[in-house]
Amino acid sequence: MSAVAPERASAVAREVLLARAYLSRVAEPPAPALAAYVDDVGPVVAARHVRAGTTSGPGALPPGVAAETAARRDTDRAGSDLALLANRGGRLVVPEDPEWPAAALAGLGVVAGADGADGLEGAPAREGPAVPLALWARGPGRLDDAPRGAVAMVGARAATDYGLWVARDWAADLADRGLTVVSGAALGIDGAAHRGALAVGGSTVAVLACGIDRAYPPSHATLLDHVVRRGLVVTEYPPGTTPARHRFLVRNRLIAALTAGTLVVEAAARSGAMRTALVASGLGRAVMIVPGPVTSAQSLGCHELARRPEVSTVGRAAHVVEEVSRVGDGYAPPPGSPSRPTDGLDPAAMRVYDALPLQTARTAVRLAHDAGVDPAGLATHLSELEARGLAETDGGRWRRRPG
Amino acid sequence: MSAVAPERASAVAREVLLARAYLSRVAEPPAPALAAYVDDVGPVVAARHVRAGTTSGPGALPPGVAAETAARRDTDRAGSDLALLANRGGRLVVPEDPEWPAAALAGLGVVAGADGADGLEGAPAREGPAVPLALWARGPGRLDDAPRGAVAMVGARAATDYGLWVARDWAADLADRGLTVVSGAALGIDGAAHRGALAVGGSTVAVLACGIDRAYPPSHATLLDHVVRRGLVVTEYPPGTTPARHRFLVRNRLIAALTAGTLVVEAAARSGAMRTALVASGLGRAVMIVPGPVTSAQSLGCHELARRPEVSTVGRAAHVVEEVSRVGDGYAPPPGSPSRPTDGLDPAAMRVYDALPLQTARTAVRLAHDAGVDPAGLATHLSELEARGLAETDGGRWRRRPG
Repeated sequence: MSAVAPERASAVAREVLLARAYLSRVAEPPAPALAAYVDDVGPVVAARHVRAGTTSGPGALPPGVAAETAARRDTDRAGSDLALLANRGGRLVVPEDPEWPAAALAGLGVVAGADGADGLEGAPAREGPAVPLALWARGPGRLDDAPRGAVAMVGARAATDYGLWVARDWAADLADRGLTVVSGAALGIDGAAHRGALAVGGSTVAVLACGIDRAYPPSHATLLDHVVRRGLVVTEYPPGTTPARHRFLVRNRLIAALTAGTLVVEAAARSGAMRTALVASGLGRAVMIVPGPVTSAQSLGCHELARRPEVSTVGRAAHVVEEVSRVGDGYAPPPGSPSRPTDGLDPAAMRVYDALPLQTARTAVRLAHDAGVDPAGLATHLSELEARGLAETDGGRWRRRPG
Repeated sequence: MSAVAPERASAVAREVLLARAYLSRVAEPPAPALAAYVDDVGPVVAARHVRAGTTSGPGALPPGVAAETAARRDTDRAGSDLALLANRGGRLVVPEDPEWPAAALAGLGVVAGADGADGLEGAPAREGPAVPLALWARGPGRLDDAPRGAVAMVGARAATDYGLWVARDWAADLADRGLTVVSGAALGIDGAAHRGALAVGGSTVAVLACGIDRAYPPSHATLLDHVVRRGLVVTEYPPGTTPARHRFLVRNRLIAALTAGTLVVEAAARSGAMRTALVASGLGRAVMIVPGPVTSAQSLGCHELARRPEVSTVGRAAHVVEEVSRVGDGYAPPPGSPSRPTDGLDPAAMRVYDALPLQTARTAVRLAHDAGVDPAGLATHLSELEARGLAETDGGRWRRRPG
């Protein structure tokens, strides 16, 4: 572990890192259309097309991608951003890298779904939560195993002494049991959670709503330095990005996604912590609240959350361990979550669906190859997808039908 | 409503009242065999046969009934008990009376079941909870509509200021919304709950673990007078019955049964309030806990209860209203908790244990009478208690073994 490590000799090609660094700045997260497009054509091609901004003919951007990137496509600071990151001993973690927390973040892509709705109460109606395009990271901590072994502790900035005590004490207890404590580095509960984990030499991750080069809140600069030295500071925002309210909300989905469960220590009636809890619930992760006096305004949000059937009241750190070890292997969305057009597809049909391109239709032979399904059964799967309005033909080739 | 009303001109025949008053004293509750027998042959015939004590030939008692009634069948104070009740403005509520809370209590009979097991952890293994044979009642309040519209508020005797505040405040709020607040008149949470309901002129019911003529705890004599004047004091124990530990546990089943939901305001890790909650759960009623600081020993039991899927954390009185109006979904019976030397004792042995004096040893005959157990089986119970280190002999007499 070193304070300033050189940029890792990444297994990832430099052009991929540059492409993703560029793409990470070119659209404001969450950018579900861009994320899907990059997933489809790869980051290098996507970056080239976004840079060109072509809206018709070969290499034309899907309208959603064009819209998401129109404002910033001319801003390319990928080289200097990566240099800045390297200077600070950081690294760009990308999906092409084994460190990418694919299992943790996959849910964000799934929830975004074909219809673009994420089904979460209070979440954006027209944007899915979307997988991030890259994660700017500093520190020896790693995310490979996320969400397994990681717990989010979130809560009020204006916390009470009680909340601060619980956050710090339980974070220490959980870190001592080998769990990674994930939070947002904010004043109040977040800071106490990071400090509790650090106090016992445990693992902690701070997920920022600003660039990796920013210390926010300023009074937590020293705390963030500690986390960089002994844990991990991570953000999907490129260097220089300033914190803004909407970014805290967007950032919260990563805190939920990177952990097996979210514990709300204190929360007023409406708060970002409650939103993080709802996202965690939508992702099928454990949602827990610390009970407090019913007379405390800062426990009000916790007690309101506790009314939801999927939310557990936990009385001690051991209960948190029980809850997060109970989370299913697939992190399936909880029963009662809204239906999707792909619900009920058998796994092979789902793979065919996943293999369908958004733009340029592909031959059946190519689809069978990409999906790894028996070509003999492909026609059946395609008919089913067509009947469900999920696929369409174009001169004997197939593509996804826009939803 | 009057402080001293004459005995009601009951629609119930005097001989039925006398029979049930006699039967109510002749067996220690819960007496599932006797309850089933009375249900089968009617109270008048049952009383005649029990008095005769015939064990063979025509009118022979079923063995279970003979055992339950052997120790006390010669004690018939029905006439004087009813006179005492009338003198105090009370009434004997019996199943033959329209006031009998049949819907509320039916569950006790069902749960007792054919095999005598009630399926509740920690509950008697060989006795069902059993419907009471009669209810001795004083006060203008009525039970006809129970469990609808009634909420149990239970909790620690050694309550904190926080718990007392919540009990009183929420009881007032619930009573103000037209709900009847049912509790056990004990020190701490129980008393605060009754007082809160009374403070707003609301309805409240105190269910005693002793005779209707006893004020227990003595410091609540005035409170009980208030409840008699404006609510209802009720018990299945005949006049003169003294409070004993096993009677509190038995009484708790009535608190659970008479209400649509049980709210545990504060409870230490093992407590009678938790048992009431488990009985309520077994009866399919709502079980709710008031959250408190995780640092408070008196909220520990609440937070442990909250781990059960059927238990709801409620943050304000309005949540309680939501929960009790939701009752009827059928909750799963509960699992697990720590052990005591008296765990696993059958109910009769437990009653013998409770009847053992701490100081001056008593004869077996006296113990059988006090405990209301079959004298023929007493030696077995005493041997078991001695083997467990719970009882010791002193010149042929018995007392509790210290420690």
